[in-house]
Order: sequence, then C-alpha cells, then structure tokens
Amino acid sequence: MKTKFWLILLLAAFALGAMANSQSDSTAALLKIEGEFMKVAAEHGSQGYMSYYADDAVEVPNGEGFLQGKENIAKTMGFLDNKDNHLTWSPVGAGIAASGDLGYTYGTYEFRSKDKDGKPAVNHGKYTTIWKKQKDGGWKVALDMGNSGQ
Amino acid sequence: MKTKFWLILLLAAFALGAMANSQSDSTAALLKIEGEFMKVAAEHGSQGYMSYYADDAVEVPNGEGFLQGKENIAKTMGFLDNKDNHLTWSPVGAGIAASGDLGYTYGTYEFRSKDKDGKPAVNHGKYTTIWKKQKDGGWKVALDMGNSGQ
Repeated sequence: MKTKFWLILLLAAFALGAMANSQSDSTAALLKIEGEFMKVAAEHGSQGYMSYYADDAVEVPNGEGFLQGKENIAKTMGFLDNKDNHLTWSPVGAGIAASGDLGYTYGTYEFRSKDKDGKPAVNHGKYTTIWKKQKDGGWKVALDMGNSGQ
Repeated sequence: MKTKFWLILLLAAFALGAMANSQSDSTAALLKIEGEFMKVAAEHGSQGYMSYYADDAVEVPNGEGFLQGKENIAKTMGFLDNKDNHLTWSPVGAGIAASGDLGYTYGTYEFRSKDKDGKPAVNHGKYTTIWKKQKDGGWKVALDMGNSGQ
C-alpha cells in the first residue's frame, strides 16, 4: 500500500515536471518564431512582416487609432519596403497558456531610418505581441502594440 | 453501425459547442473582472488599482522603461490617489486561451485631471492588458501597456 502511494506521488511529480517543461518549451518556441518573424521581415519587407499576422489581427499603434484586420494593418506597413528603414526588436520576456494556443512576447525595438537630410536617425521603443496558434498549428500575431521609450 | 456514426458525430458537435461556449463565457468573465477592476480603482485609488496586479506583473508605460514587479509598478501609481485624477477605460475586444488561464483585453482609456491652472484636462489613449489566472483561481494583470491616440 505504501509502495503504491509513493508510486503515485512519483508519477504525479513526473507529470507536473513534464507540464512545466512543456510550458517553458513552448515559450522558447514562441521566442524562436519571433526571431524568424524578424528575419523574414528584414528579408522580405512588409510582405514578409505581414505573413506572420493572423487575418483578424489587431494593431495598436502609438499616437493613432486601432487597426482591425490584416488587410488594414498591411496598408500601413509599406515603410518596411524602403531600404533605408530597418526595424529590429529584441524580446525581454514571454508567457504562454497551459493549452499552448495563446502566448505573448514583449521587448524593445529599434527603428533605424534616415531623416529628411539623409542623415541616419534612430528611434527606440517597446512592444507587446500576443500570439495565437492557428488551426494549421502555426503561430500568428493576434495583437501587436508599440509605444515609446526603453 | 450507421446509428453509432451519427451518435458519435452528434456528441462531437455537442462537445465542440460546449468548448466554444465556455471560451466566450470566459471572455465575458474577463471583461466583467476588468469592469470590477475599474470600479475598485475609482473607489480605492492606487491600492485598489494595484490589488488587481500579479506579484510578477510587468508594466509597459509609454515614454518610459519597463517596470518589473507589482512593488515597482505601485510606486508609480500614486497619482490615482489625487481626487482630481480620474482614470476610466472601456474595452474594445478580448481573447482567451482554450485552457482558460491566460487572456487579454484591449481598449481605450480616458484620463481626466486638472492642468497647472486648475482647469480640467483630458488625455485619451489605448491599452492592452494580459490577464493570468492565479493559483487561487482569481484573475490578475500579468502585463499592462498603454500608448496615445484613439
């Protein structure tokens, strides 16, 4: 009887360990996808950037109103096709649901461009991105928000 | 055999319906909690506001750096104790994980205060809040971010 009790406890500990592991694995997976997202955006401009957005995504831009839907968001991302513009970002933290279908990343971004005199200009800011697993198993951006300061 | 097939299909449809219902119920629960959050903050100032934050919460304020942890965030919320200041917000949308332990709300906020001459001043902005279910079953703010414009 005592052996059975310890066996159950051991199995429970294993199960909890596996759950915790799978959750931290998924957060790592999310950060990996965010890294790929940045690479694809750098290589393919606005089209690459938007390929990581869900059809019903929401953009929450600083100083402007909400943008609802991938199509409306895409209209504002043309600046990523200008070869003088470089948007990079770096995660600070992330979290994920136990079900592994909703997660978030947050961090800082750097936007390098040129001012009207052609001189290099740099803007820094912060972001939060909410990721949602799609029906095909891939992760897409459900909501993205930016603000200023680091 | 055919009857069994239809029975299984019917049960599957019921299960899917129940899942969809439970997800929209949870989103409604999240919006309800957000409403209570605003009421408590209006009645009890910064202490009421901070009572809805998780210990390891992250604040992403516009124009400033990340604030990590409830204690550090609380230090910046004293302005809510000034009777001239009124912070209200209104959700635009929300989402929740299938596991019901992680969700988010986003919307607009209004901050009414007085300028240095004592005249009423109003600021508008947007927010995204990420909610995490705690061990005791209650929802707390895991991350909160604000920016300007509506």
